[in-house]
Amino acid sequence: MKFELANAIALLTRTPATLSALLRDLPDPWLMQNEGPETWSPYDVIGHLIHGEETDWIPRAKIILEHGEARPFEPFDRIAMFEQSKGKTISELLDTFAQLRAENLRELQSMNLTPETLEKRGMHPELGTVTLSQLLATWVVHDLGHIRQVVRVMAKQYGAEVGPWKAYLAILGRD
Amino acid sequence: MKFELANAIALLTRTPATLSALLRDLPDPWLMQNEGPETWSPYDVIGHLIHGEETDWIPRAKIILEHGEARPFEPFDRIAMFEQSKGKTISELLDTFAQLRAENLRELQSMNLTPETLEKRGMHPELGTVTLSQLLATWVVHDLGHIRQVVRVMAKQYGAEVGPWKAYLAILGRD
Repeated sequence: MKFELANAIALLTRTPATLSALLRDLPDPWLMQNEGPETWSPYDVIGHLIHGEETDWIPRAKIILEHGEARPFEPFDRIAMFEQSKGKTISELLDTFAQLRAENLRELQSMNLTPETLEKRGMHPELGTVTLSQLLATWVVHDLGHIRQVVRVMAKQYGAEVGPWKAYLAILGRD
Repeated sequence: MKFELANAIALLTRTPATLSALLRDLPDPWLMQNEGPETWSPYDVIGHLIHGEETDWIPRAKIILEHGEARPFEPFDRIAMFEQSKGKTISELLDTFAQLRAENLRELQSMNLTPETLEKRGMHPELGTVTLSQLLATWVVHDLGHIRQVVRVMAKQYGAEVGPWKAYLAILGRD
């Protein structure tokens, strides 16, 4: 499937409502447990997505459009949310994520990107040369990856409770 | 995390809205592509979940409550949906799933299950003795596993489009 801006936006638009439908008002044991040391709970993941909205996707798109490969992206802080989320409820985090995502998609639309500008290049500090369309495709896949992480973390809480059915449930397996 | 009926129901209640938020009105390329031969598209998954509501979870719970281990469950047809979904839109499938899930959760509530009845045993045709609470925990994990499958299938459509970022995106990896 080739990258098309409208298809990417269709998915990016749906992520906040998807996570809200899944997580809002869910009992705390589902929200706060993780997969062990140095892993994230569903609550942590929403904080991470918020931080991405603030510092990663649109800021990097702007760097590409304004500076091209001349200015590498700022490295992304993958654990900033542990401080930023402190004291917030899951509903507050979900609302913040939805609001920031909506603002960022408005900003993306206002860029009036064309097939030509989507091929503009930027400089990732570790990965080297990347294009704007690759950045936007990554934004989509990053969303999907964290939805996957959230459901995997929750499923694992029932790893023992399913009894013999564990053999049939790939989500309880190796990753 | 120990099985508790209220926590299980909290998740089972949210699955239809979660999948609706993610998939309804999404452009067809996201909905209809799969991971290759003998794999399922997001569209196929919703049909599979519908078939589970019709023939798997509550019918098996009833068999446990009425017959215990004396009557093995009917084997579940994992690919019945390829016929049953034919000609239906994704919105129709999502609506059907939501309606059946709501009915089944009403039926579950009406069983007035206690910690004792949750330990009642049934006979799985392949796995042998299982308990009612294991069946219900499996229902939850089965939901989560198919949400995970849906997002993985969609993410893979952008496997090439993310360029060098592929190295950072576990969802594009081995499973």
